[in-house]
Amino acid sequence: MENRAISQAVIKRLPRYMRYLTELRSQGVERISSQELSEKMKVTASQIRQDLNLFGGFGQQGYGYNVGNLIREIGVILGLDQSHDIIVIGAGNLGRALAGYANFENRGLFIRALFDIAPENTVSNVRGLPVYSMEHLPEYLKNNRVDIAVLTIPKTAALSVAQILYDGGVRGFWNFAHLDLALPDDAYVENVHLSDSLMQLTYRLKHK
Amino acid sequence: MENRAISQAVIKRLPRYMRYLTELRSQGVERISSQELSEKMKVTASQIRQDLNLFGGFGQQGYGYNVGNLIREIGVILGLDQSHDIIVIGAGNLGRALAGYANFENRGLFIRALFDIAPENTVSNVRGLPVYSMEHLPEYLKNNRVDIAVLTIPKTAALSVAQILYDGGVRGFWNFAHLDLALPDDAYVENVHLSDSLMQLTYRLKHK
Repeated sequence: MENRAISQAVIKRLPRYMRYLTELRSQGVERISSQELSEKMKVTASQIRQDLNLFGGFGQQGYGYNVGNLIREIGVILGLDQSHDIIVIGAGNLGRALAGYANFENRGLFIRALFDIAPENTVSNVRGLPVYSMEHLPEYLKNNRVDIAVLTIPKTAALSVAQILYDGGVRGFWNFAHLDLALPDDAYVENVHLSDSLMQLTYRLKHK
Repeated sequence: MENRAISQAVIKRLPRYMRYLTELRSQGVERISSQELSEKMKVTASQIRQDLNLFGGFGQQGYGYNVGNLIREIGVILGLDQSHDIIVIGAGNLGRALAGYANFENRGLFIRALFDIAPENTVSNVRGLPVYSMEHLPEYLKNNRVDIAVLTIPKTAALSVAQILYDGGVRGFWNFAHLDLALPDDAYVENVHLSDSLMQLTYRLKHK
C-alpha cells in the first residue's frame, strides 16, 4: 500500500466513510456491500469500490466489505492509529465545545488542557480538564508533548500565539480564528471558517 | 449578470474573497490590483481576474478593483443583501458560540433566539438572546419568520427536530449534528462535520 499515491480528493472523503462505517458498526453491522454503502452515502457504488480498493481492496465478491477492517484501515491512513495530544487555546464557548467532544478520545485524540487569557473567569466544566493561564503556555510546551493546538481566539491574537506554539514545537494547528493562518512549511494548518459555510447556505437560499 | 452560470467552485471561493476584502476595507484600503490580492490570498492573479470578471468585471486597467464595490457585489451574489432570521437549536457550548458571533449581524444574519430541551439550565449570556424551551418551537415558527436553523444537537434528536423545523416552514439548515441531514429537495442543508477537518490534519501530520 502506498499512501502517498492517494489523491487529496480521496483523503477528503475518508472521514466521511469513517463516520458512516462507525455508525454501521455501532448498529452491529459487520459487513456491507459497496451497493449498500452507496445507497447510504449517496455516492456511486463504483466510486466506493474505486476509493476502497486504493487501500487494501478487501472487498470480496458476494461478501462485501468487513466493516471493522475498513474502519481500522482508514484509521491507519488518517493517522488515527497513533494517539495525538491536543490543547485548546481559548476557553470560550467554542473552545469548550470542541474540548467537550468526548468522541475524539475514541480516535486517539486526547485533549489535555485549555488555555485562556482569563482562566479565573472560565469554569473548568469541560470533562474536568484544566484551564491554564496563557502565561503558562511556553512552560507547558517545554514539559508536555503537544501534537495539535486548537485555536479559538480572536484573529488579533492568533498570529502571536501561533508563533509561541510553533516555537514550542507544535506542528499541527486546527485554526478557528478568522484568518488564514500562515506558518513555516513544516507546520500543518487546517483553517476552519465557519461563516464561509453559512454563506454557501445563504447563496443557495437566494438562488433556489 | 447571470448568477446561475457561476460554477460551484467559484461560489465556494467567494466567502474567502469576502473575508480578505472586508479585512482590507477595515484597514482603509479602497482599491486593490489582482496582483496584490493574489499575493495576499495565495491564488494566482489570473484566477482572481477570471473569478471577479464573472460578476461585473469592474477591475480597471491601472486602477485595480474598488474594494467596497467588490464586497457589495459578492454580497449580492451570496444573498447577503437580504436579511436572514436565524434560530439556534441547542444552547450548549457550540450553540452559544455560534449565537455569539456578533459579526454575523454585519452581514444581515440575525440570530433571534436559542432553543434547548433544558432552557432553565442555560444562562442566557449570549448577547441577551432568549433561550426558549424546545416545546415552544412549533408555536414560535407559527409566529416568526425563520430562514435558517442552526442545529447543534445530538444526532439522535436531529432528524425529528429538523422535521418540526421543516414543517414550520424553515428551508435553510446549518447542521452541526453528526449526521448528513437529508431533507426534502426544497430544503437547503449545509452539513458541517468538524471532526472531518481534524482528521485531514492528523492525516497530514502522519504523511508529512
